[in-house]
Amino acid sequence: MIDKRSGCPINLALEVLGDRWSLIVIRDIMFGNRRHFRELLTRSEEGIASNILAGRLKRLVNAELLSRRDDPAHRQKGIYSLTGQAIQLLPVLVQLGAWGRRHLPAAPEQALRQRLVEEGGPPLWTAFADELRHIHLGTPLPEGRESVIARLQAAFAQAAADHRNEAAAKDDKQGAGAR
Amino acid sequence: MIDKRSGCPINLALEVLGDRWSLIVIRDIMFGNRRHFRELLTRSEEGIASNILAGRLKRLVNAELLSRRDDPAHRQKGIYSLTGQAIQLLPVLVQLGAWGRRHLPAAPEQALRQRLVEEGGPPLWTAFADELRHIHLGTPLPEGRESVIARLQAAFAQAAADHRNEAAAKDDKQGAGAR
Repeated sequence: MIDKRSGCPINLALEVLGDRWSLIVIRDIMFGNRRHFRELLTRSEEGIASNILAGRLKRLVNAELLSRRDDPAHRQKGIYSLTGQAIQLLPVLVQLGAWGRRHLPAAPEQALRQRLVEEGGPPLWTAFADELRHIHLGTPLPEGRESVIARLQAAFAQAAADHRNEAAAKDDKQGAGAR
Repeated sequence: MIDKRSGCPINLALEVLGDRWSLIVIRDIMFGNRRHFRELLTRSEEGIASNILAGRLKRLVNAELLSRRDDPAHRQKGIYSLTGQAIQLLPVLVQLGAWGRRHLPAAPEQALRQRLVEEGGPPLWTAFADELRHIHLGTPLPEGRESVIARLQAAFAQAAADHRNEAAAKDDKQGAGAR
C-alpha cells in the first residue's frame, strides 16, 4: 500500500499524511462533520478542487483512515466516516493548530475555536474522541455526559457574536467621530 | 511570504509544513543534531535527494524555521540552527510519531526511540526543548540538570544492544537446533 522510505514512525506518518490536503480533509470531517463529497467541496474554506478532493478521499479510504458507505437516503451519495485510527489523529491536529495559532496569522474566529480546544486539554480531547467514535463508528457514549461538540459550538457562537458586537461598537464610534 | 488558503490555524501550519520533506528535515536537525548540508544529505534514512534538500532548507530559512550562518571552522559550510518557533514543533513531531508508531509498521529501533520520548511525557518534552534552545539559540541551561538528550541516547543504545543480544541468542538457538 505504502512505498516506505524508512521505518521511522514520524516518516511513516508523513508518508500517509504529509501532503497539504489530506489533513485538511480529515479536519473538515472531524471538526465540521462534513460527510458527503458535495459538502466537503462546497463548504471548503480553502477552496479544494474537485479532482484533488476525489483523489484524497480515495487515498484516505485506501489508507484505512476513512470508510465510505452508501447513504440510505440518497442512492448516489456516499457517506464518509473516520476510522478509529483517523480519530486518533486528534492530538496531532490539536498540536498542529496550536503551533499555527501561535506563529502564523490565524483568522480571529478560527483562532478562537482552536484556543477553546487547546484550553480544554487532554480531558476535552478524550471526550471529543469518544464523541467522534460514537458519530463515526456507532460506539455507545458514556451515559448522561454533555456533548463536547455542542459545548464547543455554543462557546464558539457566543464568542463570535461578542466579536461582531465589539466590531460594530467600534464602527459606531468611528462613524460618530467622522460626523 | 505565504499564499494563504484560509486563516484556519491548522491550514496555516500545513501550508508551511505540509509537504513530505520539511518535517523530516526538521526532525533530523532536532533529534539527530545534523547541522550541515552534507550530514543531512548523506545520513538521511529516507535518502533525500540533494536538490530537494537544498530547496527545503531554503524554504525553511525563508519561513523562519531555520537560520543559517557560516561555520567558522569551514569557510564554505553553513550551519543550520532551529529557530524558537521550530523548536516549538516538538509536540507536533511527538504526536505524529506516536500515531505512526501505533498504526504503521515502524522499525523496532526507531519505534523504541519514539516510545522513550512519548513515555517521558510533557516534562521530558519541556526539558528537551530547553536543551534545544541551548544548542540552537545559545540560551543558558538550568544549572545542574542532567542532559535529556544524553539520557535518551544512553537508553536507546542500551535497548538497541539488548535487542541485538536477543536476536543473537535466537540465532544461536536456531543454529544449535539445526546441527
